[in-house]
Amino acid sequence: MRYLIRLWTPRDLKDIMRLIRETAAFHKTLDQVKTTPEILREDGFRKEATFGCLVAEVPAEQKSKEGHTIVGYQFHYLTYCTWDGPILFGEDLYVIPEFRGRGIGTSLLSKVAKMAQEKGCRQFRFISASWNQPAMDFFAKRGAVNATINHHWHVIHVEGEHVRKLAEKARKGRP
Amino acid sequence: MRYLIRLWTPRDLKDIMRLIRETAAFHKTLDQVKTTPEILREDGFRKEATFGCLVAEVPAEQKSKEGHTIVGYQFHYLTYCTWDGPILFGEDLYVIPEFRGRGIGTSLLSKVAKMAQEKGCRQFRFISASWNQPAMDFFAKRGAVNATINHHWHVIHVEGEHVRKLAEKARKGRP
Repeated sequence: MRYLIRLWTPRDLKDIMRLIRETAAFHKTLDQVKTTPEILREDGFRKEATFGCLVAEVPAEQKSKEGHTIVGYQFHYLTYCTWDGPILFGEDLYVIPEFRGRGIGTSLLSKVAKMAQEKGCRQFRFISASWNQPAMDFFAKRGAVNATINHHWHVIHVEGEHVRKLAEKARKGRP
Repeated sequence: MRYLIRLWTPRDLKDIMRLIRETAAFHKTLDQVKTTPEILREDGFRKEATFGCLVAEVPAEQKSKEGHTIVGYQFHYLTYCTWDGPILFGEDLYVIPEFRGRGIGTSLLSKVAKMAQEKGCRQFRFISASWNQPAMDFFAKRGAVNATINHHWHVIHVEGEHVRKLAEKARKGRP
């Protein structure tokens, strides 16, 4: 099986969006997907864009049953740890079921590792759902440490009305 | 108590480093701090810098027992969610013990919320240690949701030798 791992271009946006929606459906959170190809184009291809995406592409003659040649993707951005310096952070890592077990996921991850090195990062991070055992096994097999289990790191988020309420306080100039 | 929340400048670096080390000591991970004021200056004040820091400053006449006027800080960077668009991500949020209970932490968080709004983020996120109950309570009281408990999100990371091994695979051109 031949395939290519490369950075995305605006021409990939429709395909990437299809894969993002597939990933969200797998997580049963399709209703939370607010992004569109247009939003991704505007946010991702500006000069100051802070994130990027890798795509896995197969030749036309090996396209999927549904006729697609973009069969996997991996989103990432550069963050910074006050202790450790720059850290590449992976968001989704996804390969469509039909193309799994052929090393594409590992190739995407390897490319992330290479990019991390090139950006001077000592490490890279992912957030993954603990119920997704194949994903947890995939990462663990490649040397990943679960910081939630080992160091009790929890992800918390503040949304909607609570962001507005807090921002309102800052706006009122307290202090 | 008067205090000011503002963005950092290179002049704050020594103070920020002092607070970063205090935070790390609290987490019993002082040995993991590899950053220095020089590294932070180089990484944080470049044109392409992807992160920023807020500082909490008190007037000279209210300085700490040890003589400091920078008494809190909050590190953040802009990330991107494939479902939801831009997300501001907070790293540390710290106020020295002597100055707690006076609203400084809330002011730092409010400023983060305001910045999140200004950057078009529907939400912001933090990673926090689950054993740090005061921190967990602080966030929960302000409307934060624990995504690790509620949605089983785990943070995983790949470091050192494992990054090198994976990167090596990509370098060998597989594919």
